[in-house]
Order: sequence, then structure tokens, then C-alpha cells
Amino acid sequence: MRDERKPKERRFVAAHSLPGSLNNSEFNFISRIKRRAEGARGAALADGLVHGIGDDAAVFNGRGLRDSVITADLLVEDIDFRRTSLSQDIGYKALAVSLSDIAAMGARPRWTLLSLGLPQAVYDSPFATGIYEGFLSAAREFGVTLIGGDVSRTPERIVIDSIVVGETRRGRAVLRSGARAGDHIYVTGTLGGAAAGLKLLEHARSLRTQAARARALDGLAGLTRRQARPLPRVECGALLGERRLASAMIDLSDGLSSDLARLCERSGVGARVEAARIPVAPLLRRANEINSGQLARALAGDALNLALHGGEDFELLFTVRPRVAARLPRRLGGVRLTRIGEVREAREGISISQAGRAEILTPSGFDHFKHAR
Amino acid sequence: MRDERKPKERRFVAAHSLPGSLNNSEFNFISRIKRRAEGARGAALADGLVHGIGDDAAVFNGRGLRDSVITADLLVEDIDFRRTSLSQDIGYKALAVSLSDIAAMGARPRWTLLSLGLPQAVYDSPFATGIYEGFLSAAREFGVTLIGGDVSRTPERIVIDSIVVGETRRGRAVLRSGARAGDHIYVTGTLGGAAAGLKLLEHARSLRTQAARARALDGLAGLTRRQARPLPRVECGALLGERRLASAMIDLSDGLSSDLARLCERSGVGARVEAARIPVAPLLRRANEINSGQLARALAGDALNLALHGGEDFELLFTVRPRVAARLPRRLGGVRLTRIGEVREAREGISISQAGRAEILTPSGFDHFKHAR
Repeated sequence: MRDERKPKERRFVAAHSLPGSLNNSEFNFISRIKRRAEGARGAALADGLVHGIGDDAAVFNGRGLRDSVITADLLVEDIDFRRTSLSQDIGYKALAVSLSDIAAMGARPRWTLLSLGLPQAVYDSPFATGIYEGFLSAAREFGVTLIGGDVSRTPERIVIDSIVVGETRRGRAVLRSGARAGDHIYVTGTLGGAAAGLKLLEHARSLRTQAARARALDGLAGLTRRQARPLPRVECGALLGERRLASAMIDLSDGLSSDLARLCERSGVGARVEAARIPVAPLLRRANEINSGQLARALAGDALNLALHGGEDFELLFTVRPRVAARLPRRLGGVRLTRIGEVREAREGISISQAGRAEILTPSGFDHFKHAR
Repeated sequence: MRDERKPKERRFVAAHSLPGSLNNSEFNFISRIKRRAEGARGAALADGLVHGIGDDAAVFNGRGLRDSVITADLLVEDIDFRRTSLSQDIGYKALAVSLSDIAAMGARPRWTLLSLGLPQAVYDSPFATGIYEGFLSAAREFGVTLIGGDVSRTPERIVIDSIVVGETRRGRAVLRSGARAGDHIYVTGTLGGAAAGLKLLEHARSLRTQAARARALDGLAGLTRRQARPLPRVECGALLGERRLASAMIDLSDGLSSDLARLCERSGVGARVEAARIPVAPLLRRANEINSGQLARALAGDALNLALHGGEDFELLFTVRPRVAARLPRRLGGVRLTRIGEVREAREGISISQAGRAEILTPSGFDHFKHAR
């Protein structure tokens, strides 16, 4: 699997917050779409739409006891992944990223559709079956049912659109916009592992011999696996919604600093994060003890930065009202919850405190113009 | 807009019936997917899935008073459309084909998501906005709300995945499998227009001068428009479902002969169609009176064949129980309903009667190996 995903801004269910890393054309394009979509929505029969463009997924229905939540993630070969990856990993990850979007809404994923564009050579090869196998193995693992999709021929490149429909009890979807000053900020699991795994994979690819590659990755497969097969926090996200624990939520696809900025912007708040509380992936922190290579040493030395700014961990970042925080368990849905800071007033901005000093936390997760190939 | 769509088999919500036009690799590929999907569904929590792979769209939910219906259609540049078409037409048609799938389920479309992959050059151009404009104009026209989607960069080609979610009253979705011997067979509107329009457009493209192109198309814009901007039978399809008029239904995307064969196969029945009852598009039938060109004459001479085998009319083909047929109106949702034949026992096969003689009606709508470029 290739480097980091396209930034959330490109998904226009999440188009509302636009940090400075986007260039003008993107900004303009998304603005154009949003204006038009909003115009169309006004003109169309908008009843039944609970919450649309501007979150991890769209919420609709609003009749009966349940709301539906839907997301689509389009992945394109040579932009979002490479054919040198394991086909099963590509398929698995395609579903995992959409499941993570549904989890970030506090919803429970139920159904999935897979639209797949395949070049003729892939169509006839086990690679295509591998993509399905990976996709279906994620479906089994997370209890969603493949109910449809499309298969199309493409001239050269593989295209995957992964669509997931989830459910919440009515009104229980957790939006990005619900945080208030005073709320506590939490993350699930550990951070920085996927970004470290990507750096390891890229480094290994540059090495000439199989032995050198094996040495570079020795003991650190947990990091590369984190990158290739991210674990969406499906059960934890659903429980945070069902039990009304989270006031706002987003998944960490682009990196903590970027995604926190998005949540804050949508909620109209600031935040203070404590560096010492960031749950850096243990394997990343101790990479230099496990592997004597130069990169392992560099990664361990840069662990906090990777945890703050690295993408694709697919953990959940959420806020909790102070009175609710008292009854928040330490683990939920099999994953540890770590309090990393506090929601502040918007005028206080977003800052990180370390060794008694606070400084501004600048979004520097995904910059796809740097990464684009 | 380019020639005919990929055949329905490629959409694996509709993968059940596999006529002979598919080659082995396709057959095997789809079979593989189906087996795996069914295995996964068995293993996963399949509750709430009402009807999955094997119809125009998948039906899910089954709780409360409504079922949800969802479809995804993946269109790829140079396979399903060309960049020489109007961008607005491409966007409009992308939504129209998915709306037609929902209509064919007797459901009412409510929400749509659009996943769009764009090369950088298109991303920055009015062409991208044009696709959205077309898509949103179809959304307005048919009362669906754009609630999300994705935007991704692609290396070279435009990719569009059009997702539509619709609703029916619980248990009212019309499947392909509900036809019984003795049912009457109907189609909406008129047939053959889109296929004729495609031939006209292809012919016009081969001509050197603007004047020659204008002459070739003179008076026949209704046919080319039919190809470029198909009108899905949204209201009619929804009413056929809501009023429990149709016992089985499919949309005519690949051609009457192919799609009738699919409906019959799913229902386990045969059919007899009367050639004289086929509602050939009037403009096609009279093309030679309107335009003196050679192609217009050829089209008019071939009108019945185009109506029987030409794709992309996006009319609805449906069956009606005899006692219900008595109360079927002549027009429904603004479109004429025409009885074209009768459902027979499976052993009678599918035949067409003309001038007192019956012969076998062979599916010969879309052959994408002939059309593929």
C-alpha cells in the first residue's frame, strides 16, 4: 500500500474545513462543488437528510428509530496505492478506510458495496481475486455484508470505490461539530505506527538486496502491517455513539494535528494537547532497541512528530463532556482510550504543551502535493 | 457520450444471469466474486439484507416501515464515455443510469453520492465543474439530494461512481424474479431511440465538415439527445412499486432482447413478444421522412431491430398479473405503458411473433467485446 491517503478535503463529505495545505485550485474546486451541491439540495427534496457534506460520512433517513450513515472512498492506483502491494492488502484497506469513516460517526457499519475498475490484464489475473479476498476478509472481520457494487473495465489502472452504509439510533450520530470548550480530548489506541511503517516500506524498497530489506524491517513488521492493514475502530466508535459518550469525533486518517484542526474548526473551538500524554506506538518508540538500522534509530528519535503529524493510523479522535468523562472506561470495544488534552475557546487556538511550555500545533499531516507521484 | 454501457453482468448486483455473450474469464471472475460474496455474507451478520446480488439494486434494512435500495454504477473514460462529449451530459447520464436502476426496483430515489476521479488537467478545468453541473441538474430534476462522495486525483482518465439510495414501503421492492406464466409484459415509453442516436453520433463524428455533420443530424436531435441524456422512468417505476402493479421489473439498459432474457431467467419463465406491439420510437421509424441521408434511411429500415436489441433506452420492462392488468392505466408517471407480450412457461423459451410466425428471440443487445475500444 502506498504512502498516505489523499487528504480528507478531497472527500467532499468532509469538505468543510480547508487548512492552508490545499492549493487554490483545490480550494476553488471544492468550494464550487459545495455551493452547487447546497444549491441543488435546497432545490431538491431535502427532507430526510439529517447531516450532509462536511463530516466523515453523511447521515440520512431520520424516520423511524434509526438513522443511516453512508460514506464512499475512491482509491486510484498510483495515487492511493501501488500494484506492488499485496492485492489482499489493497482490498482490505479499501474497506477499512470506509469502515473508519462510519466508526467516526459513532455508527455501526452494516452493508458495503464495492465498485471496481480493472484493466483487462488484472481482470483475468489472481490480483483481482486478491482484492476481493482482502475486501471480503475485512467485511467478515467487521461484520458487514457485501450487497452489491459494480465491475468495470478500465484502460490501465485499478480503481476502487468502497461504499459503506451504517446505522445509528436516531439522532445518535456523532458529528465533528459537537465539541465545546471544557470537553476532554481522547484518542483510541496508539499513534505514529502507520507513518513509521510507510517510511520503513519506502526505505526497504530502495534497498538492493532481499537481505538488506529483511534487515531493515527486522522486528518492525508491526509497523508496516499497521500501514498495510489498518484496523478501523469499528466497535469502539459504535459504542461511543450508542452510549452517548463522545460529543464530537473524527478518524485519524491525515494525522492528529490535521484532523484535530478539522474537528476544532467544525466545532468552532480551540484545543490544548499535552505532548507527554500522546500514546506513541510502543514499537515506534522502541524501534532503535529492536532494530539497529539507521532508519529505526531515526524513527524512534522522531516518534512524537510521527504520532502528531503522521497519517493513516485510523484511530479515533473524540471529545467528551467533563461529566461524561468520569464514567468513560479505560478501554472500549477492545481498545485503550487515552486522554490527550482539553477543548478550549476558539480564540485560544490549537496548542501543544511540552515541558511546561505551550506552542502552536500546526497541521502538518498530509501534504499530497509533496507526496503525489 | 459513448456507445452502449457495459453489460449488466459487469454490475454484480446484477450478476446472476449470464448470457452467452460473456467470455469465460468474465464468467469465471463474476462467479468467483459471487461465491466469495455469498460465503462472506453467510459468515457476516446478514440480518437486514432483504435482497442482494442479482437485481438492479440491492434491498436492505427490512426494519420499520421502509426498505432501502442502493445501487452503484462505475463509469470509466474511454470505456463508458468519451471526453469529446459535453461534460454536462456525462454528469447527467452518470446519475440517470443509477436512477434507472432504482426505478427498476419500484423504489423512489432519495439520496446520491458521487465519487469522482479526475486527472489534474481536468481537475483545474471547467470540464470537472460541467460534470457536477450535469449530475446536479439530474439530481434536481428527479428530486434526489447529493449528500456526499469523494474526489480523487487519477493519473489520466476520468472515473465516475454514481451511487443512489432509494426507498420503498416495506416489502414493496420489485425484483426481477417475480414474473409468472400468464403475466402480461409491458414496456414504458418507446424503444430504439438511444441506439439510433448512437449510430448517428458515430456517423457524424466520421464526417469531415461541420456542414456534413449538421446535415446528417438534421431533424434527428431527438435521437442523439436520447443517447446523451436518457430519461430514467423515476416516477413511473416508483408508482409501479408503490401501487403493487408490477410483479417483476428490469430497466432496459442493454436492450429489450437481453434484458427480457435476464428477467425471464431470474423468474424461471419464458415469454412471447409480439413484434407489432413494440413501441418503436416515432422519430426513428420516420427518420427517412425527416432526413434524406443514407444513414437515416438505414435506421428507419432497421427500426424494429434497434428497438429489440439496441441498448440505453432506460425504459422499464415489467410484468403484470392478469387481474392487475385490468386496472393498469395507459399512462403512469407521465409515460405511456405498452403491452408487448405475455409471460410463458420456461420450456416455451423466449420468442417473438411476427406476421403469424413465431421465432426465437435471441439476446443480442450489448456485446462489449465488439464495442470495446
